[in-house]
Amino acid sequence: MTADPGTAGLDAVLGDILAAARASTDRGRVADYIPELAGVDPGQFGLSVALADGSQHSVGDADVPFSIQSVSKVFALAIALGRLGDRLWARVGREPSGLAFNSILQLEHEQGIPRNPFINAGAIVVTDAALAGHAPREYLGELLRFIRAAAEDDDIHINDAVARSETETGHRNFALAHYMRAHGNLDNPPELTLGAYFHQCAVEMTCAQLARAGRFLMGAPGMPRLVSADRVRRINALMLTCGHYDGSGDFAFRVGLPGKSGVGGGILVIAPGRASVAVWSPGLNAQGNSKLGTEAVEMLARRMGWSVFG
Amino acid sequence: MTADPGTAGLDAVLGDILAAARASTDRGRVADYIPELAGVDPGQFGLSVALADGSQHSVGDADVPFSIQSVSKVFALAIALGRLGDRLWARVGREPSGLAFNSILQLEHEQGIPRNPFINAGAIVVTDAALAGHAPREYLGELLRFIRAAAEDDDIHINDAVARSETETGHRNFALAHYMRAHGNLDNPPELTLGAYFHQCAVEMTCAQLARAGRFLMGAPGMPRLVSADRVRRINALMLTCGHYDGSGDFAFRVGLPGKSGVGGGILVIAPGRASVAVWSPGLNAQGNSKLGTEAVEMLARRMGWSVFG
Amino acid sequence: MTADPGTAGLDAVLGDILAAARASTDRGRVADYIPELAGVDPGQFGLSVALADGSQHSVGDADVPFSIQSVSKVFALAIALGRLGDRLWARVGREPSGLAFNSILQLEHEQGIPRNPFINAGAIVVTDAALAGHAPREYLGELLRFIRAAAEDDDIHINDAVARSETETGHRNFALAHYMRAHGNLDNPPELTLGAYFHQCAVEMTCAQLARAGRFLMGAPGMPRLVSADRVRRINALMLTCGHYDGSGDFAFRVGLPGKSGVGGGILVIAPGRASVAVWSPGLNAQGNSKLGTEAVEMLARRMGWSVFG
Amino acid sequence: MTADPGTAGLDAVLGDILAAARASTDRGRVADYIPELAGVDPGQFGLSVALADGSQHSVGDADVPFSIQSVSKVFALAIALGRLGDRLWARVGREPSGLAFNSILQLEHEQGIPRNPFINAGAIVVTDAALAGHAPREYLGELLRFIRAAAEDDDIHINDAVARSETETGHRNFALAHYMRAHGNLDNPPELTLGAYFHQCAVEMTCAQLARAGRFLMGAPGMPRLVSADRVRRINALMLTCGHYDGSGDFAFRVGLPGKSGVGGGILVIAPGRASVAVWSPGLNAQGNSKLGTEAVEMLARRMGWSVFG
Repeated sequence: MTADPGTAGLDAVLGDILAAARASTDRGRVADYIPELAGVDPGQFGLSVALADGSQHSVGDADVPFSIQSVSKVFALAIALGRLGDRLWARVGREPSGLAFNSILQLEHEQGIPRNPFINAGAIVVTDAALAGHAPREYLGELLRFIRAAAEDDDIHINDAVARSETETGHRNFALAHYMRAHGNLDNPPELTLGAYFHQCAVEMTCAQLARAGRFLMGAPGMPRLVSADRVRRINALMLTCGHYDGSGDFAFRVGLPGKSGVGGGILVIAPGRASVAVWSPGLNAQGNSKLGTEAVEMLARRMGWSVFG
Repeated sequence: MTADPGTAGLDAVLGDILAAARASTDRGRVADYIPELAGVDPGQFGLSVALADGSQHSVGDADVPFSIQSVSKVFALAIALGRLGDRLWARVGREPSGLAFNSILQLEHEQGIPRNPFINAGAIVVTDAALAGHAPREYLGELLRFIRAAAEDDDIHINDAVARSETETGHRNFALAHYMRAHGNLDNPPELTLGAYFHQCAVEMTCAQLARAGRFLMGAPGMPRLVSADRVRRINALMLTCGHYDGSGDFAFRVGLPGKSGVGGGILVIAPGRASVAVWSPGLNAQGNSKLGTEAVEMLARRMGWSVFG
Repeated sequence: MTADPGTAGLDAVLGDILAAARASTDRGRVADYIPELAGVDPGQFGLSVALADGSQHSVGDADVPFSIQSVSKVFALAIALGRLGDRLWARVGREPSGLAFNSILQLEHEQGIPRNPFINAGAIVVTDAALAGHAPREYLGELLRFIRAAAEDDDIHINDAVARSETETGHRNFALAHYMRAHGNLDNPPELTLGAYFHQCAVEMTCAQLARAGRFLMGAPGMPRLVSADRVRRINALMLTCGHYDGSGDFAFRVGLPGKSGVGGGILVIAPGRASVAVWSPGLNAQGNSKLGTEAVEMLARRMGWSVFG
Repeated sequence: MTADPGTAGLDAVLGDILAAARASTDRGRVADYIPELAGVDPGQFGLSVALADGSQHSVGDADVPFSIQSVSKVFALAIALGRLGDRLWARVGREPSGLAFNSILQLEHEQGIPRNPFINAGAIVVTDAALAGHAPREYLGELLRFIRAAAEDDDIHINDAVARSETETGHRNFALAHYMRAHGNLDNPPELTLGAYFHQCAVEMTCAQLARAGRFLMGAPGMPRLVSADRVRRINALMLTCGHYDGSGDFAFRVGLPGKSGVGGGILVIAPGRASVAVWSPGLNAQGNSKLGTEAVEMLARRMGWSVFG
């Protein structure tokens, strides 16, 4: 197919974005609750765009691996939906939470059913469901196979040191898991589900890899077809309404595209029918999403006219 | 311009939707908290679609006027943004609330700043801001002029009996208004702002009128241009993330389009670049949104391939 | 009867308390949300003790009238219980709220039933119930008659300017009242109940008068007998568990006696069988209770061995 | 010393209470979340009163051992205060929670500081503090020594099967502990503190033993003196305001005495200066406190005139 006419000036736009990122004096704050993440150089910035025409355009540190953290929740959701189908929705909701990413408040009000699959509690349930009787090792193998197939790249791995680090410091996630177990919404012992969850979050990818891995959500011909078109739309809808925790509304307002952020500073953004975008900059804003990354995709969407909202 | 190729089968789709609506045995529950609304015949169903090519397609009771109620919040937001610009966002947020439409909980946690302009508290602040020193009568005049210009139809009015009825029974809205006034986030006395607010909610329109009135949000050439393209995108983003109260995530998941519902059973839905849709059926689902209306636009979006998510 | 042996050193203790109060450099902060209260001289301090033997001992500004504010809730509760008996408990609970005095959160969770009669929402319901079909003027007449009979002093009045001031600025109380009305837990229009409530709060008394007025809660022979012994015990229990808003536990821990504070800086404290104590100092602590007043009754209870807890 | 004149009719009152308990048809519901407790015969009822004159009066199944569960929190608090003194209050509050006994809501609002030492979260912190660097085995040894000294009875033990059972099903307590650890308010690993906590809850005592063990809180001459008089008053104050979870206000209202209940159906009640009372009946009311036990001590306090409130 021919390139979307709207992609003509892409390289110039990417150049401007990189220049703006490099000139930025306020880069946000690197997450410090996991020692392995706290040591990352905040000066890095990478951006990669995989277009519907099959081309890929990257700038900056797009080939530096980083910890994708919560961006992994998108792949886990795809796998869990593949295994359970709509039965998954009996265990996790589809509404924005209106609360911080690791809040436990809502769980008490709603009897252990997390609001959506992208807050921590919801993602833990998704991983628990995706385990579906298999050992964590098998699930993690499937997760890596899924991501590698999506990216068409086998050089994607889990950083065990990061996973171990989260296991040691993840008391809030243990609290969430035990709490849901107390409400009967966790099939496996908390330490088993969280073992899988922490390793899932510790997948490392470059922007270039992540942009390619997101192509199955573009809903465009020629892209890897890992889930049905219906499911693509629904995952995108959830990313738009819930993908940035309590900053989801603001991201939709400013960027106008489905996206999922991770505390490692990465964001996967989908321009349906047009592009899969990965951006990475380690410093976070007040909502826990990459500060320069958000600004970069805001500029990208505006300059390219990619907002889904007209 | 020529019709979007995707609109070819529209009339057949509308026919199927009408047949399904007529055959439905569970029509939800008509709102009963306002006497004037409680008396509406629940058997009614109307749907109207205004396309980017300028054509309009309607079925069912598309010419029966109904109380648009909270759908009016979209027009009020456009007016308030026109008056205040981005200063409005100092007084109201842009995040989904994660709570019921008339909840007062969030206000206490966040010092009188409502989460978004489409929950009741937020809409009351928007109306208060839109008053901007003018008398309610002047504001309501401007609101009607805006809606009439958008619909290119002067036969659109406010039902005073409905407005009065809300004034008498609207204790929860009075509670919200006094609460925000206590936090300094209401410029006018509660009874004045609420007087304007209740009248704004009492605007009556038909589906055909409402679909035309929504065209300014399509972002398509030839449509009424009442606000800037940037603002169109942002209003659509807010409708998608916050337009259906605590059912917004589910609406995005199922329909994939920005929409704003009202307790009178109407919903305005925008397919960016393609169509403005109004549907009406008085019975509501558990989240307070039109039950058949939601089902109708879900079928419409799926059959026409209009989801913004691919 | 002879004096309680424990009251021998009372005058010396009162002298020490007065000296400590006069020497205090941190007097808390005078309430500023009602203009009439904001202007009160923070340097004042009064304390009066009415003993079971009929004697009364006072120090400092014990004859300066002040606005009793929420201390009035004790008298209103006695009147409402006299009118409705235990039916009152269908409309208001008997549990500490665990929240600030004017919180609206709990009302949403518990469908408009306030937690106890001493938080604002509960006191508004109590006044609403005490009205019992009568005009505010009649209720306020009964309230004054009750207080005057308890104090055996007719020179006790309502300060209309204070009442008007509260009416104008009491948006939070209007929010609470409308909210409860929306839940069906207010018999009268909010402005009528609040009119009575604001006047009730505006009763002015001296420490000497207030200490005498509290004697009916001492449960000792020879004291005014305005309610039954059973009811005395129950009102005292509510004062101990709920009388100081979110500082009730701390007051019980430090003082060990039932008490009810007001935002005007007054506190009524009951030592069952022994004494009725009124203290006043306008500066408030972080929980909204008189700072020096709390310290004074803490010293008084400890030195006199009056704690109910042994 | 001679008997308090108010204790003359005690035996007759106890006989009436036993008769009423035996005649009761609604005995509440035995806790079923711990298998070992679920199997207890709900028909049992025991009551024992240790008076200030040194005599002890018992009826019913006062010599049948039961699991004291949360009643143990009183002894743990005494030990922790002995070790840390007032520094303990930096880690746990002194206010009623206004929420259910195992709520996690409040912790989120207040950054991991539990409201009081008698809700589960607070008691876990108290045990964590009481460990103070020692192994759980040592702490549990000290706890048993304290209780045995208080009761002057060495035949008091921990039921390991009950402790193990709680460890296996205590997911909510694990959630609370991890949550507080995440906020830095737990010195030890959650499994270590909870190991001690679950064993502490599994202490088994008879009513006769428990009534004697509570005598150190009577504040009367001749009673075991295990903590200072000041501390006795403060522990009693906390029992009165917080000892029955979200039913504390109601217990104070009806009984008028400090008390601490356990989910095993036991309640320890203190009549300062007069008596230490233990009652046991396994069936619980809606607030999770012994139903017949509450009714029994209500009758006892009223008939004996023991309310602290006059």
